[in-house]
Amino acid sequence: MRIIYNVAVLLVLFVKQLAFAQNGLVVFQSDFGLKDGAVSAMKGVALGVSSELKLFDLTHEIPAYDIWEAAYRLHQTVPYYPKGTVFVSVCDPGVGTERHSVVMLTNSGHYIVTPDNGTLTLVAEHLGIQEIRQIDEDINRLKNSNASYTFHGRDVYAYTAARLASRTITFEQVGPTLPNEVVRLSYQKAAYANGIVQGNIPVLDVQYGNVWSNISKAMIDQLGVTPGAKLRVQIFQKDKILYDKLVQLVNTFGEVPIGTDVAYINSLLNFSIAVNQGNFSDKYKVFSGADWTIKVSK
Amino acid sequence: MRIIYNVAVLLVLFVKQLAFAQNGLVVFQSDFGLKDGAVSAMKGVALGVSSELKLFDLTHEIPAYDIWEAAYRLHQTVPYYPKGTVFVSVCDPGVGTERHSVVMLTNSGHYIVTPDNGTLTLVAEHLGIQEIRQIDEDINRLKNSNASYTFHGRDVYAYTAARLASRTITFEQVGPTLPNEVVRLSYQKAAYANGIVQGNIPVLDVQYGNVWSNISKAMIDQLGVTPGAKLRVQIFQKDKILYDKLVQLVNTFGEVPIGTDVAYINSLLNFSIAVNQGNFSDKYKVFSGADWTIKVSK
Amino acid sequence: MRIIYNVAVLLVLFVKQLAFAQNGLVVFQSDFGLKDGAVSAMKGVALGVSSELKLFDLTHEIPAYDIWEAAYRLHQTVPYYPKGTVFVSVCDPGVGTERHSVVMLTNSGHYIVTPDNGTLTLVAEHLGIQEIRQIDEDINRLKNSNASYTFHGRDVYAYTAARLASRTITFEQVGPTLPNEVVRLSYQKAAYANGIVQGNIPVLDVQYGNVWSNISKAMIDQLGVTPGAKLRVQIFQKDKILYDKLVQLVNTFGEVPIGTDVAYINSLLNFSIAVNQGNFSDKYKVFSGADWTIKVSK
Repeated sequence: MRIIYNVAVLLVLFVKQLAFAQNGLVVFQSDFGLKDGAVSAMKGVALGVSSELKLFDLTHEIPAYDIWEAAYRLHQTVPYYPKGTVFVSVCDPGVGTERHSVVMLTNSGHYIVTPDNGTLTLVAEHLGIQEIRQIDEDINRLKNSNASYTFHGRDVYAYTAARLASRTITFEQVGPTLPNEVVRLSYQKAAYANGIVQGNIPVLDVQYGNVWSNISKAMIDQLGVTPGAKLRVQIFQKDKILYDKLVQLVNTFGEVPIGTDVAYINSLLNFSIAVNQGNFSDKYKVFSGADWTIKVSK
Repeated sequence: MRIIYNVAVLLVLFVKQLAFAQNGLVVFQSDFGLKDGAVSAMKGVALGVSSELKLFDLTHEIPAYDIWEAAYRLHQTVPYYPKGTVFVSVCDPGVGTERHSVVMLTNSGHYIVTPDNGTLTLVAEHLGIQEIRQIDEDINRLKNSNASYTFHGRDVYAYTAARLASRTITFEQVGPTLPNEVVRLSYQKAAYANGIVQGNIPVLDVQYGNVWSNISKAMIDQLGVTPGAKLRVQIFQKDKILYDKLVQLVNTFGEVPIGTDVAYINSLLNFSIAVNQGNFSDKYKVFSGADWTIKVSK
Repeated sequence: MRIIYNVAVLLVLFVKQLAFAQNGLVVFQSDFGLKDGAVSAMKGVALGVSSELKLFDLTHEIPAYDIWEAAYRLHQTVPYYPKGTVFVSVCDPGVGTERHSVVMLTNSGHYIVTPDNGTLTLVAEHLGIQEIRQIDEDINRLKNSNASYTFHGRDVYAYTAARLASRTITFEQVGPTLPNEVVRLSYQKAAYANGIVQGNIPVLDVQYGNVWSNISKAMIDQLGVTPGAKLRVQIFQKDKILYDKLVQLVNTFGEVPIGTDVAYINSLLNFSIAVNQGNFSDKYKVFSGADWTIKVSK
């Protein structure tokens, strides 16, 4: 009986191990831009660890020092990669200071290598924290890079991610565990009350100028509306109202004429508003961030 | 005899199969830009189908909603990839409406996964249509993505392309065949008459500001000119003439001083005009599109 | 005895061979930008040679025709890739003219495929020249590309790099050797005299607006200063002084308040100056190039 129990425990551990086994994929995100050699140097370091790794990019156009946007882009993208993928996110205005350098394993089986400076806010909230380890830089640092203090992305994060993804080291060998908590940026959560849902504009769909909210489809459903309905949408920057209109909720932009405002559920299943084939953000001077509030009602 | 015939038929089918066999390469194009996680999410979905796939980019800087430019960039690039490569092109202003989602197999053995909204105009014309199939979204759609109506690039196109490229499905399993025709954007074709060749400016060589035409080298040869000759080049926007000069036809820009206008045959073997190490488009306010006409004569 | 000697020679040759053996990695750099299909066409050609190759990018945002910046980005990045990696650099304002098309093998074991137009200046100086071969375009040119004179990046460089990286050809089969010299761009070297180190601003850290010099950490050490010290930093464009301040030398930006000027040793171990979380270049109108001089003293 005891033997069977032990076998079962081993099996569970083995299955857990498999569930979170690194898959050789590394995905890079940064605020470095693509105009110089910084991103490429990170990849070179990773390939120096193992040329079998498969390297991909999330984005390198995070606005300089914008930790919130780095957090959002991870939230937007991580779940679409297979379990066991290792992400590197380097938006690190405090490089070299005392913020922790960590690897977080999410409950969904994704690894994220990053300074713990708020970058993990949304991934921790939505995917859950399985375990966090602090990178032991005595071991997990590019050889002969100690004289460089300003490029941990290359010297520590890419190097550690590559070692982890290639199974040169185990997750345990990253370094000691930390408490299951991360630095969290505060933001206005979405809420429903008295027939109005209210939320924040965390980010724009920058390429098209569409405005995304953090109000979930489920909350819009609470209003008792279905596609085709007209919704009242109000947008505020602090106390100032910039937009107040009745807008049709559609499934697809093609349901309204080009140039018309539309409300829709975006690809992350959040309430959003756009101009069909136009740029809502430009037209109404609506942007994103902690200052911005959006209210929706029937 | 009958047996020999049957073997021959099988052999032909087998050779045809080999000729068009998917090679595990997927190339992505879109108008998404690289500032957010959209392109990366498509790649994550593809890697979720098979992490053995090799993923590349054509460009993601197609101007928003510009189907013509998407068509041109495919035309410019597809032929340089090995047969069996699967392309995904997502410039989809009508996402969610009734345009067909298709996979086209060209006579050159390339697969293109795209909304059939004009994107296939030039590839169909230059490479020829072997077969077109409509994507059966009951089968070829990312699991649990049905609540999302606005990101077919991720939920349908990347997913189907990955399944096809990894041979998870055959071409037949994409869905039912459609007639061998695609939605075609109209444009002014190049023609020769009375010592003048006339064509359109389909696109700029944007990085350098060079102006590309759709007049082939063969047509310029009809003028009976060779490199070194002076050509009269006229450029019109609708009826308005913006440029009328004698320009030297060169093989290489180095044949004329820096800052001089030059005519040349570009990398797609079409007639083009530039300022040596300058920006012709900026200098003469010449751009591209259906409105633009270029005339060349001795 | 003779046999032992021969074995020893063979062993040395074999070890040398291993040290410089191509590793299947190809890294592309150009001034093409990413808005059209040019970079992708190069990759398609490479994959046509061997779909087993692993293709990466350095940057494609080298300013048009800026050979110096191409040289600098190679210098910044090449050493971080494994030995045996093949780089392609195409910043080629003289495409089609008589500059040599070459492959340089560095003493560090990296191959660089490029027009020899100054692009190799800094890599030759810092990594050393093992051997240079001129590309024999009778052999190493994409089939049926002879009518195209303006896209050697695709027709010659990508094709040759792919053949070399995939070991389709040996380094010897690239073409005949050339003398161990390259075209060098002249620039102002850094020097120490009388308590002042003086150097040039070769490039900006463009994403953040930080200013990089070519003054090494070792030279700053000659001033006898350690982190925390105040340094006098003067910046000149030709004879005109644009900046003259006492600036604290720090290891990490976090040591000073946001908005404060800081001096630091950058990721290439060169003296640099920045505004903490600001843009030094914008603030003080300081840029890079041969005109720019920076002086540092106690």
